[in-house]
Amino acid sequence: MSKIAILGFGTVGSGTVEVFYKNKNNYQKTTNAELDIKYILDIRDFPDSPYADKFVKDFDVILSDPEVTVIAELIGGNTFAYDCVKRALEAGKSVVTSNKELVATKGAELLKIARDNNVNYFFEASVGGGIPIIRPLQQCLMSDEITSIVGILNGTTNYILTKMLKEGAEFADVLSKAQELGYAERDPEDDVGGGDACRKICILASLIFGEHIYPEDVYTEGVTSITKEDAEYATSWGGAIKLIAAAQRITPAAANTAGPASGECLEISVCPCFVPLESQLSGVDDVFNAILVRGEATGEVVFYGRGAGKYPTASAVVADILNALKPDSRSLAWDEKGGESCVVDYEKQKHRFYLRLCGIGKAEVNGLFGDVKFLRRENAPESEIAFITQEISREELNKKCGNLNVLGKIQIMNVREV
Amino acid sequence: MSKIAILGFGTVGSGTVEVFYKNKNNYQKTTNAELDIKYILDIRDFPDSPYADKFVKDFDVILSDPEVTVIAELIGGNTFAYDCVKRALEAGKSVVTSNKELVATKGAELLKIARDNNVNYFFEASVGGGIPIIRPLQQCLMSDEITSIVGILNGTTNYILTKMLKEGAEFADVLSKAQELGYAERDPEDDVGGGDACRKICILASLIFGEHIYPEDVYTEGVTSITKEDAEYATSWGGAIKLIAAAQRITPAAANTAGPASGECLEISVCPCFVPLESQLSGVDDVFNAILVRGEATGEVVFYGRGAGKYPTASAVVADILNALKPDSRSLAWDEKGGESCVVDYEKQKHRFYLRLCGIGKAEVNGLFGDVKFLRRENAPESEIAFITQEISREELNKKCGNLNVLGKIQIMNVREV
Repeated sequence: MSKIAILGFGTVGSGTVEVFYKNKNNYQKTTNAELDIKYILDIRDFPDSPYADKFVKDFDVILSDPEVTVIAELIGGNTFAYDCVKRALEAGKSVVTSNKELVATKGAELLKIARDNNVNYFFEASVGGGIPIIRPLQQCLMSDEITSIVGILNGTTNYILTKMLKEGAEFADVLSKAQELGYAERDPEDDVGGGDACRKICILASLIFGEHIYPEDVYTEGVTSITKEDAEYATSWGGAIKLIAAAQRITPAAANTAGPASGECLEISVCPCFVPLESQLSGVDDVFNAILVRGEATGEVVFYGRGAGKYPTASAVVADILNALKPDSRSLAWDEKGGESCVVDYEKQKHRFYLRLCGIGKAEVNGLFGDVKFLRRENAPESEIAFITQEISREELNKKCGNLNVLGKIQIMNVREV
Repeated sequence: MSKIAILGFGTVGSGTVEVFYKNKNNYQKTTNAELDIKYILDIRDFPDSPYADKFVKDFDVILSDPEVTVIAELIGGNTFAYDCVKRALEAGKSVVTSNKELVATKGAELLKIARDNNVNYFFEASVGGGIPIIRPLQQCLMSDEITSIVGILNGTTNYILTKMLKEGAEFADVLSKAQELGYAERDPEDDVGGGDACRKICILASLIFGEHIYPEDVYTEGVTSITKEDAEYATSWGGAIKLIAAAQRITPAAANTAGPASGECLEISVCPCFVPLESQLSGVDDVFNAILVRGEATGEVVFYGRGAGKYPTASAVVADILNALKPDSRSLAWDEKGGESCVVDYEKQKHRFYLRLCGIGKAEVNGLFGDVKFLRRENAPESEIAFITQEISREELNKKCGNLNVLGKIQIMNVREV
């Protein structure tokens, strides 16, 4: 008999309990074990819940119960949740989680504690909701060398950008609508500022690079300054605007920067991009997520689905619970970074950019930026000019733009990343 | 020290050896074990191969070597390969394979032998080449109820259909070109007749249904009768023609047929379909494969990538080898079917159809088929008429078409399957 404890009875927590009891009989068939949820930890009371008898308010009750072998941490954040996970692993209990913040900031440490205590720390639900990505990645990783991961990892921003592109709406209006529909939080900063996508790409990058990549080392740019005029230019250019999270191994020579003396570097970023229609990612609309993994032998593989939501996320949590119950689940692992970061300075990396300027002529643009590709949109004011630059670093670009009236500036998705 | 044996040094076999030695050092780090390929079984001689010293011609050498713990069966077919796999499993050696024919025809039996001998029989490479699908499916399966799987599982036919649609080419011309490029076999029957896709959907269906689904129980229709005129009508209708392999659970009530007295039925088919542009599958072009999995909690998840090829397939084989080396890998399993088949009669299932007829007027069409949606294409001869029917079973449709001059007849992908 294996007993499970659920920490946090919010959206994902209650979904996890629901999915578990719906399919419990199947699980027992598959695992040949009697399973049950023994505790649900929450500070709130749920007297009317069919699981009312399982609620506890003291984590120590769970920790000191030797019957509990797996704990699902669905609290979020990295303070109380961190304390719970650490103590659970140290007590020899496996932990599964959807808490991307904790994995992205403390993953290496918690994975080491799990290894040292011969238990598992699984987090399939932390990236891509119900899309299986962590485990397939680990599987690809085993046999192949993964060279890059590029994805649309935040459903809220993707919903907003899709509406802006398809309906010609303004950012603020779509955001309000998304909040009404429950697709966006009351405080949307974490989504629209890129922070959520940043933590997710950190988790994926840490897995492929074998070294903890911290959110603060990642160039992160949100979508708040994108306008419907930018969206019109993206359409006329032949693509879509997407918030792209990308990580790829590069050699120090290709890094255009003084990287680590030896070994590989990692180029990692979260920023809105013009994505050409030829890319699989340009057609990923609304709240959907997609993750494109490129391996040396495997080639390109794309995983697509709902990146969030109560039941998709809950089903990933339950899958991790069942995996954690297996006697030998080889745990995922990456190391704490030692010394110099392997992350290159993204602002020194060369990309092409879309620029929308005001009060400057074509000749002056060519003088400043060389040969560019001018873009058109209907009803553009005479004073507006938009174009795609040659490859240039953000650093250089920002210098050149210093005295200009910049209305829009968006990276073109790198061919290497397409 | 774990020793591996490779059976068959063809495309996938030689690719597997190459991928293995390229990444061998990483594998040893991950698995904490010394690994090596000890034998390669092939009837041919490879005196110039860097692995010449590993070649053997007698399977008993491998079978009787207690150092060999994992065998990769890359021979193909279900005669000699079947004998080898059976004896290997009985001798307590795990087997991994890309041989879809053997899994689709003997899977239940071989999985049972593997279970009885406490070893694994893995076949990630048998469906979707390098796309991780079997293991993610097993993972989803564990926590969720999978209701349907719909996919483009054969790269050769997808390449041919893409060229026909995009270049207005005829089937025979594209097939010749595909053969020149090595995308199609000299004897293309297995691909263009639907047999290859049929075996793959049988494997996926057996996994989700837990019961062996045999290729001979599956309605299978190839692409050989599709013409460029049909492709033009598909475009004008607003979609593409794809060879769709589909399996979905249905209740006996929905099966329009006398199904098993109790329990669920399975609707399973391989046939060309008109696929609307809104479907993720309509944009899957050339030799790519995509598999759409729908789960009750997970929602829709799509896996996309190269469904064949030396290195993608080899990387899946090597991943399976590494998984098989783990001390406790919970094996996949499904049961031998007992008694009545759960597969419903597909020709009794109702779908909409595209029909292209000759020598019949609109009034007569409406009289026969009721309210239909007429289609247009440029330069169609006056005597040609094309339309989309209401929902009707193949059986009824074929009766109605008995005396008509039918130029084209293609199923519309069912909304349930989109």
